[in-house]
Amino acid sequence: MSSDSKPPTKYGVVLFPGFQSLDVFGPCDLLATHSRFNTLSIAMISSTMDPVPTNLLPTDGCGQLVVPTHTFDNAPDDIEVLIVPGGPGTRDDEAIAPAMVYVKRIYPKLRYLLTVCTGSALVAKTGLLDGKRATTNKKSFKWATCQGLEVNWVLEARWVTDGNIWTSSGISAGIDMTLAFMAAVYGEDAAQSVADHSEYRRHTDAGDDPFAQFAGA
Amino acid sequence: MSSDSKPPTKYGVVLFPGFQSLDVFGPCDLLATHSRFNTLSIAMISSTMDPVPTNLLPTDGCGQLVVPTHTFDNAPDDIEVLIVPGGPGTRDDEAIAPAMVYVKRIYPKLRYLLTVCTGSALVAKTGLLDGKRATTNKKSFKWATCQGLEVNWVLEARWVTDGNIWTSSGISAGIDMTLAFMAAVYGEDAAQSVADHSEYRRHTDAGDDPFAQFAGA
Repeated sequence: MSSDSKPPTKYGVVLFPGFQSLDVFGPCDLLATHSRFNTLSIAMISSTMDPVPTNLLPTDGCGQLVVPTHTFDNAPDDIEVLIVPGGPGTRDDEAIAPAMVYVKRIYPKLRYLLTVCTGSALVAKTGLLDGKRATTNKKSFKWATCQGLEVNWVLEARWVTDGNIWTSSGISAGIDMTLAFMAAVYGEDAAQSVADHSEYRRHTDAGDDPFAQFAGA
Repeated sequence: MSSDSKPPTKYGVVLFPGFQSLDVFGPCDLLATHSRFNTLSIAMISSTMDPVPTNLLPTDGCGQLVVPTHTFDNAPDDIEVLIVPGGPGTRDDEAIAPAMVYVKRIYPKLRYLLTVCTGSALVAKTGLLDGKRATTNKKSFKWATCQGLEVNWVLEARWVTDGNIWTSSGISAGIDMTLAFMAAVYGEDAAQSVADHSEYRRHTDAGDDPFAQFAGA
């Protein structure tokens, strides 16, 4: 937990074409539930104000479009917690280049950086994870870990913390990591209350990871 | 499972102001993962083509905006599976009136109707659940069940099926229900593959509901 006395209230979420929707809306939904009792803000940040597709190919009829609230150039400069999702877009250098530049630039001002799924691969490519412990999506473990050869990748982990950086395993692991983060900054009762409202059975052991077996699959 | 031989591929999701984001993006993310191997389409349907807010109050800085692909007037008429989310908007008659009219009109053409959380309260108000078994959000159980006095509400259930209508309990229960639905229509292996890709530990017992204790809280 940060040495700052007040828990964080100002969140930002990085959006890029081909982001994984549950990586974003798992955490965002939990934060919205917490916000019903303790006001939070979430800035949705992308290259432009154009709606951002979850799919990389417009011909894919299974995607959704989410509207940003800010661009990387005009995002609030007092964001305390930045969330970086994963998804197929993290394998497209052009899709994530502006997000990488933003994350690298803003990190020194953040209190916490959280990644879900292959969001850690995006951050690893910036060099910010060099020498740190981190985890990532297990079905994409081989590819993701090659995006940061100086990172101490942890195979068997639901999520990993190193300093002020929290990285989760694939997709739904972001829900457990966010609840653990909320427990750390808002207290265990607040996190459990959000989980109960969400009717979600938490996995509270960061090292319990049945999906590690799929690494390299 | 429907008597139709081909499993469904055409989905629609109803959006209204104040929908719960995880109610939508839990199921949509699972469907998108399945769609990487077996093409599906998802129409995002609302009153107008304006982006739809997850929050009812524009002053709430914690909401997101999702862009519809169709309106209730021009939605594809071959949708096979319609998903109705819950959320704070279901308590606002004005917010959900167009969605109620659409659901009531389109239901006879559907193969399946799925609701998440208080989405079942919205559908109950149309009368479509009269005489049927259904469940809903547990923290909102008292309010939700009063929206359909002729519904056979099931308190202790992660999800309930009655004919071609599937209703889930609150928020994250939509993930388990969707995986159960996928197992029913695409087969158990397909559902487990999606859960593994999503790194999600399924709850496969529809009657196992630790959150029933919160009903009326």
